[in-house]
Amino acid sequence: MTGREGGAELEPIGNSPVVVLVRPQLAENIGACARAMANGGLFHLRLVAPRDGWPLERAWRNASGADRILDAATVHPNLPEAIADLQHVFATCPRPRHIIKPVMTARGAAFELREICARDLRAGVLFGPERAGLDNDDMAQADALVRFPLNPNFMSLNLAQAVMVMAYEWWMARDETPGRILMTNETRVATKAELENFLTHLIDQLDACGFLRNLPKRPGMVRNIRHFFQRGEVTEQELRTLHGIVTELARGRRQMGRLEKDMPEYSLTACRES
Amino acid sequence: MTGREGGAELEPIGNSPVVVLVRPQLAENIGACARAMANGGLFHLRLVAPRDGWPLERAWRNASGADRILDAATVHPNLPEAIADLQHVFATCPRPRHIIKPVMTARGAAFELREICARDLRAGVLFGPERAGLDNDDMAQADALVRFPLNPNFMSLNLAQAVMVMAYEWWMARDETPGRILMTNETRVATKAELENFLTHLIDQLDACGFLRNLPKRPGMVRNIRHFFQRGEVTEQELRTLHGIVTELARGRRQMGRLEKDMPEYSLTACRES
Repeated sequence: MTGREGGAELEPIGNSPVVVLVRPQLAENIGACARAMANGGLFHLRLVAPRDGWPLERAWRNASGADRILDAATVHPNLPEAIADLQHVFATCPRPRHIIKPVMTARGAAFELREICARDLRAGVLFGPERAGLDNDDMAQADALVRFPLNPNFMSLNLAQAVMVMAYEWWMARDETPGRILMTNETRVATKAELENFLTHLIDQLDACGFLRNLPKRPGMVRNIRHFFQRGEVTEQELRTLHGIVTELARGRRQMGRLEKDMPEYSLTACRES
Repeated sequence: MTGREGGAELEPIGNSPVVVLVRPQLAENIGACARAMANGGLFHLRLVAPRDGWPLERAWRNASGADRILDAATVHPNLPEAIADLQHVFATCPRPRHIIKPVMTARGAAFELREICARDLRAGVLFGPERAGLDNDDMAQADALVRFPLNPNFMSLNLAQAVMVMAYEWWMARDETPGRILMTNETRVATKAELENFLTHLIDQLDACGFLRNLPKRPGMVRNIRHFFQRGEVTEQELRTLHGIVTELARGRRQMGRLEKDMPEYSLTACRES
């Protein structure tokens, strides 16, 4: 059960906080927590008095390969023993309690945990049992509470979901991925000269086929076409495809040898991908 | 099954994005997705060709009261039909694909979704089947991809966890909870005058009991005591308790009628909470 083969090649990434599950009830949830920890780059798992004992095969079955986190998890009879070597302890707490204590968002806590861990201090985050959450004595042992901003009309947060949000924010607190990029793979965003070259090609063909024959309206129509092709980031590869489309559409018209003013739309299907 | 009694009084909060589960496999996951949606203030759920049909009792059992989201969910034979009325569609995609498309983080996507919805446009987010995720044809129907920054060494993200992260970021995109506050309930953070009053009381008693009798060291010791009590935000109520502790400890000493230089630590248990 423990120590079995398989699973992802997980190991601790730097100094990361310990996840302490206090009196967890369901093995499935412990496994799902390990999976969520792996997603967010956390590794250290401690279990305080798991209801059904430990180890539990169902935890491994539900961990989707985060086996090493479960293999390395430790079990403790009570919370003080589980956190004895830690220097900072945060307690997740969904509901307001009558406690005088700093309260952080998951994001605020993640930033503080990054700072604490960067100072080589050992930190932990407590998560309570599925049914009732942490009790007042549990919370009295923490430096601060963590309360996720979430819909106040629906606060029933699954244990593994709570671990997921915390692990996600832990990862995000040092992530520098820009909020939006254009994924271009082998190609690249076209230069303005390349775009201009295509637009010249297109407008020449539109002049030739008569699409722009209304001279008073022509400047506005050309501008609108320009606006459309400028709206997104067109790539160099896409411009080559568009060149090919224009060339092929124009050739079809030339072969027909006449100006087909009301050419039905389905004739567009004659064009090939370049 | 559908329309049954019970569950939370959930309803749509403003114009919020549709969650589209494409070919979901497990009813439990559909229920867990509904629960995660409720946590993050999302309501509209559409199912494209759910593997085991619909409705499925196990989904309701796993939704922890997010019944209304499941009750209102619609089923569609294919993706184009499910998104026909939407104006913006984002597709979650864990792995890089050979696609030329904007790629956003969950946070970046959440901000854009807030902007889109604020303009009264209809938006949706696609989530693929558990095993393989969205296929290339699914993604070709989206305006942009969403890829969560997460541990690249462990990308196996549960479907409901993916919905949780997106729903959480949707909620956070308009949340203004400060990253850290002090929860004080009925009391409040003490003023500097109140703190000074307590420190005067404490130092007087420490002078009286002889703790500060080393005069060359006294200024430094007093400063250190001041530093300690200034470190956190002490509340007015806590100051009253501290006043009581000092008073009671001093009385104990006076009753003993002598300076107990090496008083054993357990005698502190004699003090009462004020």
